[in-house]
Amino acid sequence: MAKDITLFWVSGSPPCWRVMIALEEKNLQGYNQKLLSFEKGEHKSKEVLDINPRGQVPTFKYGDKIINESYGACFFLEVWQTQGTKLIPENSNEKAQVLQRAFEGNTLHQKMIDVITYNWRVPENERHDSAFKRHKEALTAELKLWEGYLQKQKGSSSFLAGKNFSMADVIVFPSVAFLFRMGLCEESYPNLAEYYKGLKDRPSIKATWPPTWKETPGQQLFKDI
Amino acid sequence: MAKDITLFWVSGSPPCWRVMIALEEKNLQGYNQKLLSFEKGEHKSKEVLDINPRGQVPTFKYGDKIINESYGACFFLEVWQTQGTKLIPENSNEKAQVLQRAFEGNTLHQKMIDVITYNWRVPENERHDSAFKRHKEALTAELKLWEGYLQKQKGSSSFLAGKNFSMADVIVFPSVAFLFRMGLCEESYPNLAEYYKGLKDRPSIKATWPPTWKETPGQQLFKDI
Repeated sequence: MAKDITLFWVSGSPPCWRVMIALEEKNLQGYNQKLLSFEKGEHKSKEVLDINPRGQVPTFKYGDKIINESYGACFFLEVWQTQGTKLIPENSNEKAQVLQRAFEGNTLHQKMIDVITYNWRVPENERHDSAFKRHKEALTAELKLWEGYLQKQKGSSSFLAGKNFSMADVIVFPSVAFLFRMGLCEESYPNLAEYYKGLKDRPSIKATWPPTWKETPGQQLFKDI
Repeated sequence: MAKDITLFWVSGSPPCWRVMIALEEKNLQGYNQKLLSFEKGEHKSKEVLDINPRGQVPTFKYGDKIINESYGACFFLEVWQTQGTKLIPENSNEKAQVLQRAFEGNTLHQKMIDVITYNWRVPENERHDSAFKRHKEALTAELKLWEGYLQKQKGSSSFLAGKNFSMADVIVFPSVAFLFRMGLCEESYPNLAEYYKGLKDRPSIKATWPPTWKETPGQQLFKDI
């Protein structure tokens, strides 16, 4: 159980946070963990690269089995089907909805990353204002899609897929929180802001709130998105 | 069952093909389907955009529930746990391995797409030989990782994760087939070539082989990767 699990993580990384929320929801508190410094490049250390050849975070270990993909680790935790929150419903209609939102969460995350990493991912001589603008427009269009989803279900549920907290929230909430941490305007995205505020004090989320976010102010990178 | 399922797909698209292989493996032949022409832009038609706002393929419908994400549709099909091939094992060690390979398949696919779509995704005035070269190098590094995985298990299994055909193969095989279709050199990647040849005549794969691939020759885009 929890003692067989080890998580290598970085504070503020949505993929790491997903796994931590899922661990809380499945009542697997007390797992082994190692907080890595992204700034010091510890996710590229030999210790991590030996088990995670792409040098990504998180790295999740269960016994000697390694899952380096955050979706993989989250879905794996449903092995404990009857423990804690049921994150993927049995009912096929509800399951379809949860899977759709959980997996399209990857598109939201990717479009956010495309904007936030542009300046350090793309060498200076290859950067174009037009490309950066296009990435920002793609993120705006994506965010409007999610605003629409939440608008449509307003009043009937405060979760992303159906009546209950699910894998869709586990996976997408950290990206939404990241967007607001980086200055996304609450007035421009009122439904996302309401979703964010409705979930931020949920015990599994509060218990795993990125420690660096408590110590430092956010940034304003997304303020004009 | 099959009569409640509808799939909108495009010939030769690895994400579509994944879902079709999974449907075959789960003995769900006879589902409704609509083959769209990518060249004619039919995946951006009103009929598709109404249920799939990003205009991606595939679109999968089960009754009135819609799953537009290929991973979502494939994982959904495990609703029929006892029908056809068990694609995600119950045993936690085996499950961990299948999930790891299935989800890291997305990285392989993305790095392949980064190379193949560079010239039509990036406007001409923003293209740089150095960026294209970097994408090709990233794909080469990724392919070497998968070569290494297959090398390590040589002689013990011809599947990607464990002793049996699994969700990892459902998801990754179409990308591997696409790479060889686009000219990947068998001599440079002998383990991937052996994996490809070992699976290409599997009934679920043969039955869903992209029809356009039977009619036209492949290309040489990946020949120097």
